[in-house]
Amino acid sequence: MDLKFLHELIVPAHTKIAMIIMDGLGGLPLEPGGKTELEAAHTPHLDALAAQSALGLIVPLGPGITVESGPGHLGIFGYDPLEYRIGRGALEAVGLEFALGPHDVAARGNFCSVDAAGVVTDRRAGRIPTDASKKLSQRLKMQIDDVEFFVETVKEHRLAIVMRGPGLGVAVTGSDPQKDGLPPLPVRALDPDSEKTARCVNQFIERARQLLADERPANMILVRGLDHYPRLPAFPDLFGLRAAAIAVNPTYRGIARLVGMQVLKVDGDTVADEFAALEKNWHDFYFFYLHVKQTDLAGEDGDFSRKVRVIEEVDGLMPRLMALQPDVVVVSGDHSTPAALKGHSWHPVPTLLYGKYVRADGIAEFGERACARGSLGVLPAKDIMPLALANAQRLAKFSA
Amino acid sequence: MDLKFLHELIVPAHTKIAMIIMDGLGGLPLEPGGKTELEAAHTPHLDALAAQSALGLIVPLGPGITVESGPGHLGIFGYDPLEYRIGRGALEAVGLEFALGPHDVAARGNFCSVDAAGVVTDRRAGRIPTDASKKLSQRLKMQIDDVEFFVETVKEHRLAIVMRGPGLGVAVTGSDPQKDGLPPLPVRALDPDSEKTARCVNQFIERARQLLADERPANMILVRGLDHYPRLPAFPDLFGLRAAAIAVNPTYRGIARLVGMQVLKVDGDTVADEFAALEKNWHDFYFFYLHVKQTDLAGEDGDFSRKVRVIEEVDGLMPRLMALQPDVVVVSGDHSTPAALKGHSWHPVPTLLYGKYVRADGIAEFGERACARGSLGVLPAKDIMPLALANAQRLAKFSA
Repeated sequence: MDLKFLHELIVPAHTKIAMIIMDGLGGLPLEPGGKTELEAAHTPHLDALAAQSALGLIVPLGPGITVESGPGHLGIFGYDPLEYRIGRGALEAVGLEFALGPHDVAARGNFCSVDAAGVVTDRRAGRIPTDASKKLSQRLKMQIDDVEFFVETVKEHRLAIVMRGPGLGVAVTGSDPQKDGLPPLPVRALDPDSEKTARCVNQFIERARQLLADERPANMILVRGLDHYPRLPAFPDLFGLRAAAIAVNPTYRGIARLVGMQVLKVDGDTVADEFAALEKNWHDFYFFYLHVKQTDLAGEDGDFSRKVRVIEEVDGLMPRLMALQPDVVVVSGDHSTPAALKGHSWHPVPTLLYGKYVRADGIAEFGERACARGSLGVLPAKDIMPLALANAQRLAKFSA
Repeated sequence: MDLKFLHELIVPAHTKIAMIIMDGLGGLPLEPGGKTELEAAHTPHLDALAAQSALGLIVPLGPGITVESGPGHLGIFGYDPLEYRIGRGALEAVGLEFALGPHDVAARGNFCSVDAAGVVTDRRAGRIPTDASKKLSQRLKMQIDDVEFFVETVKEHRLAIVMRGPGLGVAVTGSDPQKDGLPPLPVRALDPDSEKTARCVNQFIERARQLLADERPANMILVRGLDHYPRLPAFPDLFGLRAAAIAVNPTYRGIARLVGMQVLKVDGDTVADEFAALEKNWHDFYFFYLHVKQTDLAGEDGDFSRKVRVIEEVDGLMPRLMALQPDVVVVSGDHSTPAALKGHSWHPVPTLLYGKYVRADGIAEFGERACARGSLGVLPAKDIMPLALANAQRLAKFSA
């Protein structure tokens, strides 16, 4: 179902939708026949909510496909992640709250170490401290012809690079040789419209090499993943929803800003602080996206029991959401991050859809296998938004 | 999800995937409330495997659509059967191990009987013995202008006809009137590019009529289903898998060859012989397709209990597969063939996906209704390959 069709059915309402996204929520048992993180967690509030909800498993992008946070979030926000792609460079830049313009080109960068012959000896420059990295990145802001280069440290050796100027195509190769022991690659244009970009980036890299020549260990940079700021229909316009994002981690604040949500201030960095922001702003918005990063971090660390504890922490905060009497609640994740795999995975994500007009399954448990029995079935992540809108009575009947 | 996208995510690995395809596996109860063939079968090994697997029901092509073996197999091999079509003629030809070229045109043929007025009296020429058919088909090899005609007996009256020559379009009608009592139809071109084809086929048919005039009962031929050799991306390249096919029946050997699998020698023609070929070749391939024909034959014959026995035979052989410690196992079928219907049907096919990283449903039964409760849900057959690849850790993360 395309977004234009959906947009035409949008009707105004005063209902409120809350979407609680536990990053990497889906999991796996540590041993055959065991429980997943979500199943192992003691979640009385989520279980009670599940009993009044429709349950299902969402597929972030397609069967068997593991996604990064960018496409994972586009899906739960209702966008087809295959149709709307966010370059990682753009994601890093917006995550830094860099005000990207629609014609800007964003790229990912790394400080790296090269030897006297110019061969890369460490693609991450020993993961230099963020503070040192920030000082160096300031020195790389420059202008080449009519193109401005902005350089911001994301963390340690990682950089967001933004190019601003006329006539910048993005069909170019990167300079990262992808492993140590090789020299950086010259950036090449893959179409005529991108020749200026390739030329400017190569000059930028050469200037950076000169500027960093006396530094150790970060005496060179690598550039890759050039892309335009993605042009997405803005979420609030598309769905007729004044929308707020509550997230601590810059990447998720960036993704939310990218789709046009208002990113709220969170006093503190705990999940409880995020719920406090939700309460504080409840009267000013119709849609709330609340992002919990720690489930994913625990999964990435392979820390099953820490992931369980984070889920239990969120469960303990659910009464504060429900006390606000939301019309529709979605509890889900952007992808799975099983501790057993120490990374993102392709497994469908347990999902709960609560609302006054939801046809509840009466399954009083929120977990992977409970959701597999739910009436939402196995569905694409992008189908969750239309279901939330319908249950919030924000979609008109389709007549012809 | 298109194959190009999937192909770009393929990463090398040393994991092994085994796909056990029981042809026409899905069934129906003989009476309301009864069990299907698979449910009625005593399958302790498949049931134990199911307990460690994710279950679901695959839809070969689309809801309500009954398929032949060609599209049924393309689906389970990951190709969209609506996008990639194999003409039955091409299928027959490759099934005979005929080395079809990419510009060749293949068709299905029949020996038939006609009366003195040229009216078809038996479209199957009394199902003449295969040996007699082979002798006759040898006589039909000929050249018409610059087009060579190859004719091979498939079985009894059935023929595979291949045309080789320049400028052969395939938009032509067939000559088969589809019922007795009518004369063969002239072959007509449906577009200008196919006029040469139509002319050559009509001349070929006329020459065949003359050559067969004194034969009884096979004194004429019918031609239909002309098509090019299908151009498919080769399975081993597409999925980065050295792939082997184990099948006794020529059609399935042909389909496997068509997608680029290496077709293994099977000493004997039983299912046990096929499992022996699996064991013998285990170290040389990463993907194995093992095809069991007898389930379908029993279903076509309406022989419920014989189909049950074939399933039980396969069950008894499963320990030999599991002893090889495959990383991922798929047990499924290319379509349903319920004995109750004595033919192929549209019913989704019970499917089991086993692997170390599969999120198991804990349902200790392999059957239609058990699979309907499984976490794979009801899914297109073509989604099975990406899931198998993901579970074999052969798909990279999609970042943007």
